[in-house]
Amino acid sequence: MVGIKDVAKQAGVSVSTVSNVLNGRVNQMRKETLERIEKCIKELHYLPNRSAQQLKSGNVKMLGVLIPSFMNPNFASLVNILEKIARETYGYQIILGNTNRQDDQEQRFLEDISSFGIKGAIVVSADTDKPHFVHAIKNGMHLVSFDGLRSSAKNSLLIDSISMDNFKAGELAASFLIQQGLKDLMFVSIHGDIVSRLNKISGFKKELEKQGIDVKDRELIIKEIENYGDAELTGIGSKAADILLKTRKKLPEGIIAINDMVALGMISRFQSLGIKVPEDISIIGIDDTYLSSYMSPALTTISSPMYKMAQQMLKRLISRIEGQKLKPKEFLYMPKLVCRDSVKILPKR
Amino acid sequence: MVGIKDVAKQAGVSVSTVSNVLNGRVNQMRKETLERIEKCIKELHYLPNRSAQQLKSGNVKMLGVLIPSFMNPNFASLVNILEKIARETYGYQIILGNTNRQDDQEQRFLEDISSFGIKGAIVVSADTDKPHFVHAIKNGMHLVSFDGLRSSAKNSLLIDSISMDNFKAGELAASFLIQQGLKDLMFVSIHGDIVSRLNKISGFKKELEKQGIDVKDRELIIKEIENYGDAELTGIGSKAADILLKTRKKLPEGIIAINDMVALGMISRFQSLGIKVPEDISIIGIDDTYLSSYMSPALTTISSPMYKMAQQMLKRLISRIEGQKLKPKEFLYMPKLVCRDSVKILPKR
Repeated sequence: MVGIKDVAKQAGVSVSTVSNVLNGRVNQMRKETLERIEKCIKELHYLPNRSAQQLKSGNVKMLGVLIPSFMNPNFASLVNILEKIARETYGYQIILGNTNRQDDQEQRFLEDISSFGIKGAIVVSADTDKPHFVHAIKNGMHLVSFDGLRSSAKNSLLIDSISMDNFKAGELAASFLIQQGLKDLMFVSIHGDIVSRLNKISGFKKELEKQGIDVKDRELIIKEIENYGDAELTGIGSKAADILLKTRKKLPEGIIAINDMVALGMISRFQSLGIKVPEDISIIGIDDTYLSSYMSPALTTISSPMYKMAQQMLKRLISRIEGQKLKPKEFLYMPKLVCRDSVKILPKR
Repeated sequence: MVGIKDVAKQAGVSVSTVSNVLNGRVNQMRKETLERIEKCIKELHYLPNRSAQQLKSGNVKMLGVLIPSFMNPNFASLVNILEKIARETYGYQIILGNTNRQDDQEQRFLEDISSFGIKGAIVVSADTDKPHFVHAIKNGMHLVSFDGLRSSAKNSLLIDSISMDNFKAGELAASFLIQQGLKDLMFVSIHGDIVSRLNKISGFKKELEKQGIDVKDRELIIKEIENYGDAELTGIGSKAADILLKTRKKLPEGIIAINDMVALGMISRFQSLGIKVPEDISIIGIDDTYLSSYMSPALTTISSPMYKMAQQMLKRLISRIEGQKLKPKEFLYMPKLVCRDSVKILPKR
């Protein structure tokens, strides 16, 4: 294999001069020398092994990102944004792991990247105080959580938690439906005590109570297929539509889906049975994925400031990796309503 | 930090006995001993660091997977399948990189995983003989390409290439549209000399010629936004719809989209302008992503046997990593038509 020494030899310069070129320190260099070195690099097909250098210096400019599943477009977008900001703003590369919301896979991924010398990870996981997170931190890893919360308010905060205000999201969705004169509402969610999901439902119920609407029997919780890792969200939505049709005498007027993909599955199933959205039933999602505006009808949904959240996650994580001491903190971001075509709008008087 | 020695000490056994438990070698062990060791592991919160052990032994059971973008659901599905088979069949973990179809990002990812001791990667990249692939192979990395082909038939095959028969896919889509009595056809694709895309267009044209249809002006190639990495596919479809409306006196009868996401963008744009699919225009996709059956209308598309292809990629790659010598080979998989609702079907006589 061609090494930096070979380039130096062929160009008739020292290794450190070649190194200067590789690192862009060329201000003091004669134009001819620079051109000669660049020519030799090309001719010899020399590729500097940046990573090996970093590993030697103990400075791996790399982050782990741990995602439940790429089949949820919301996480695909998050990764896309994180990757771009990490690279362009910080010069960091991202290494991704798909964990299917399984603790053993999360643990394995964190152990693996730790053994590679990687010092930080963003974890998209249900709660922030899992034993393998504690273990990773003891091993010198820095963690920041997206959409994860303390499993109990009694625990002290172990790592930064960055998420949309899920309670507000539920409130906002309910309030918008009620404003359109819809009162018979349901919330469709997925089985499993994921705090961010539970908070959305709490916000929904709070708003109902505020408006004097009975909160009894307002939830439909669908059991997912084992190890689904968010891969089956549309299937869950489709199943929810069938259950509503089977168990209720009359469909609800409005439904809040726990996320856009569940909304998509539900809309698609209703439409295939001749039930029109929003004419016969209004449906609102949560997330505002990049697909939502392309659905038919385009999906009314609750949007989070994903770009800002991604910026914050990276800022907190990379500051720590590079030596800053920061106390764990919770960051909540305000969601907003994106009004499209899947909710029947009350005509203005 | 708690180590294996602490567990052994507390349980009153040797380290190798604890190691036997960790590795499932418990047949010869007394039930009480096993239970005592398991209790100590739990009490001490001991987590064996599998990766560190692997790194020491030089046997990292891990693969890289290099993807242009997770925003294309087709790649998200591929990752999902690869991850599942690798873990369940081979006990391998997958580490993912998002490369935006940029050579420098591909190179960096391959260097990084190589410096971690990872010996193999699946690359989703336009062609199989890029200089950084050559470099990675020289460094002892094993590579298998998905959907990549030789940039020229003159080059000898450098790595395994596993893909759908893209030429057949183009032929199949065209043939199906023509069978429905549609003759004024267009192929909408994305700018860039990606061999798999070009082959789809060649198959399309071949079928047109076979059926005696003039192939002139049958392609619309949309320039993407820089560094798009498949993140803007729906946007490209939407743009294509606008261009067709602006530049043609009459819309084509049928359109083949280079992939399902471009089809989705196009359908959504047409519908928003009151143009009905399939009544006014028929659209067929390629990929059959998990979203296609949920679109409205459900998308008629060309499907590839993704699971079989993923199995083959992993079999070839892991066999090599584990020491088998295999000559690079091209594997082509037959696509099939999935008939849903986005193409107007000729009534049966």
